[in-house]
Amino acid sequence: MITVEQAEQIILDNKSDLGAEITLFDTSAGRVLAETIRADRDLPPYNRVMVDGIAIKYSAFERGIRIFKIKAVQAAGVEPVEVDGDEECIEIMTGAAIPESVDTVIRYEDITIGEGEAIINLATIEKGQGLHLKGADKTQGDVLAVPGQLITPAVLSLIASVGEAEVRVKKVPRIVVISTGDEVIEVHKRPTPFQIRRSNNYTAQAILKTLGYEASVLHLPDDPEVMRNQLSQCFQYYDAIILAGGVSAGKFDFLPQVLNELGVEQLFHKVAQRPGKPFWFGKHGNGVPVFAFPGNPVAVYMCLHRYFIPWLYATLGQQQPAPVYAMLNNDLEFKPELKYFLQVKLLVNEQAKLIAEPIVGNGSGDFANLADANAFMELPAEKSVFKKGEVYRVHLINPL
Amino acid sequence: MITVEQAEQIILDNKSDLGAEITLFDTSAGRVLAETIRADRDLPPYNRVMVDGIAIKYSAFERGIRIFKIKAVQAAGVEPVEVDGDEECIEIMTGAAIPESVDTVIRYEDITIGEGEAIINLATIEKGQGLHLKGADKTQGDVLAVPGQLITPAVLSLIASVGEAEVRVKKVPRIVVISTGDEVIEVHKRPTPFQIRRSNNYTAQAILKTLGYEASVLHLPDDPEVMRNQLSQCFQYYDAIILAGGVSAGKFDFLPQVLNELGVEQLFHKVAQRPGKPFWFGKHGNGVPVFAFPGNPVAVYMCLHRYFIPWLYATLGQQQPAPVYAMLNNDLEFKPELKYFLQVKLLVNEQAKLIAEPIVGNGSGDFANLADANAFMELPAEKSVFKKGEVYRVHLINPL
Repeated sequence: MITVEQAEQIILDNKSDLGAEITLFDTSAGRVLAETIRADRDLPPYNRVMVDGIAIKYSAFERGIRIFKIKAVQAAGVEPVEVDGDEECIEIMTGAAIPESVDTVIRYEDITIGEGEAIINLATIEKGQGLHLKGADKTQGDVLAVPGQLITPAVLSLIASVGEAEVRVKKVPRIVVISTGDEVIEVHKRPTPFQIRRSNNYTAQAILKTLGYEASVLHLPDDPEVMRNQLSQCFQYYDAIILAGGVSAGKFDFLPQVLNELGVEQLFHKVAQRPGKPFWFGKHGNGVPVFAFPGNPVAVYMCLHRYFIPWLYATLGQQQPAPVYAMLNNDLEFKPELKYFLQVKLLVNEQAKLIAEPIVGNGSGDFANLADANAFMELPAEKSVFKKGEVYRVHLINPL
Repeated sequence: MITVEQAEQIILDNKSDLGAEITLFDTSAGRVLAETIRADRDLPPYNRVMVDGIAIKYSAFERGIRIFKIKAVQAAGVEPVEVDGDEECIEIMTGAAIPESVDTVIRYEDITIGEGEAIINLATIEKGQGLHLKGADKTQGDVLAVPGQLITPAVLSLIASVGEAEVRVKKVPRIVVISTGDEVIEVHKRPTPFQIRRSNNYTAQAILKTLGYEASVLHLPDDPEVMRNQLSQCFQYYDAIILAGGVSAGKFDFLPQVLNELGVEQLFHKVAQRPGKPFWFGKHGNGVPVFAFPGNPVAVYMCLHRYFIPWLYATLGQQQPAPVYAMLNNDLEFKPELKYFLQVKLLVNEQAKLIAEPIVGNGSGDFANLADANAFMELPAEKSVFKKGEVYRVHLINPL
């Protein structure tokens, strides 16, 4: 049995590299950049007017001129119109490029307009006010985003602003989530008293979907022949295989053997954790990893977040998110020498502290309480007594 | 000019109710429930075996019996096989329903199997061990999820487990994001020195997409006639209209007038905030709200999160998320009597505190820094000096 950290390391060491592809910029949110985005010109690209009003020469104001003849009205997006002398101004709109012959903008609130002229109602102004100067944010050629960066809406905005209508992004693995077990039936069917409905593969699919990833779902019966055939095809079609169930010590847990026959090398089996102790991980000769989680829904939930998502980040060349810590809000005992992933409800108090309220469940098979949790707290295996006020790492499963 | 809180209240008072619709459970993640989900039977539905091993009568062990004849092997999902006497056991697998004639499960690790019998290698066991008892989590008829609850993967798992293959969810508004302004050109086009590329509508679309909502995009020129025609159609097709630009005091800001002519009542114009002061909000006679944000990208970003998303939650009947607070990590001055939405980078330190590092920008038109921020911090209008260590509310724009 290996530790959580050892398991994590083996998984990260076995990341894939699926290369890159081109996508349209407006569908690129949530993807990972595979190219460097640079400013194609200065940002802002011109001395940009930030208020609606008039543009004048500051030196004219300095010389005492307060009444300006309106030479022209300049909308945003049109070629600037120059003034002919100090006593002229341009009525100008937000977003416009300021003409070169003027340098300062006075907003409507501070002027009176009438009869083709504008009167400034201020005693003092600042030279250059009302402007966002060319290149103030970025200079042409500056790096705006780098390979490995997640395309958040803000990054997408940068990509659009520099005209990258097509953008190079990392290829996302094709993922399949496979549930197993003959006690598990279709959701629309009526179970006998000793059957339950299938939920693991749909839940895993939903988790991946909320994180922005597509996954197919499949169910396999406890039949080694069927398993062999179906899995064999999966290794052709998918880049990552997630299994739920079939890896305990049970008589009908054929999976490890079937996987072995199909050319999958076992990299570990069993991790010192609860839930999820029977977690099995291996890699096919063709490079496709197999995450075989035990069948209990809470273990699937936790293992997906704790192991599969970091593998996905590594595979996409994306930086792992910074660890998040929270303060335990109750005393707690957990005796086995296993790392315990406690379901908690996280809240931020008015002192800006992340507080973790344990959700009391009935063991690892209990998923009815998972709906109330928004994180797992990772309690170290070496300890068995945990006190209110102690701080441990947490893994968010829903946004705060 | 109204306050942020007043603006928020007016917006929430003008939520819509679009009713409900049926969706397939496996596509329901991210939707909001419009029905009560109850346990159709106990959870677990039977006394569920939690380990692989043998099932015996505890009273037999108590009477000193350690060697048990294996009557049958019982997989999960099949009808339980009863033992005939105290000296018999059932070899049984995780997930199976325990037969009524036995009551305790000993895992493989604690027994020796051979010649059709199993020997228990333990001096003491607990009655009922290795079992997750029928109804331990929920009783038949218990409420598992309620209307207004977001369907997280865990809730979807509950929906699946009770067999609700079709689920009633709130209808999501059809949203359109409309950018305006003649200085704005298509992303793939080459701008003149006084034009910029369009990004606002795509960014807003991407923000909504990362939150799980679809939106269409549209661009309108600064032409009241075209605006009138296009907007008039939008009020037929969409349930919510988001505009970016066209609501300042400028000569070409026709929007408020056009909207008025189309039967949209102005509910407010201008909010005491930066960015986003010219924010205009109104409602069409047919109930469709118009969120007209100023055109600067940071204002659009902030206003979407601060105003549109809460409206969406209210419209879907979903509880607003609990407020999140963070500790400012730098001294800061902001003099105008406006609520200041500061771009910050949030991190959780090892004391479980949320720390907000200000991202220094160049005013409200600067969106190049937005890629480094993951939240806006809401600094009160009444104060102008803000000190390191003070705690204020934050609005996350990316997950932690």
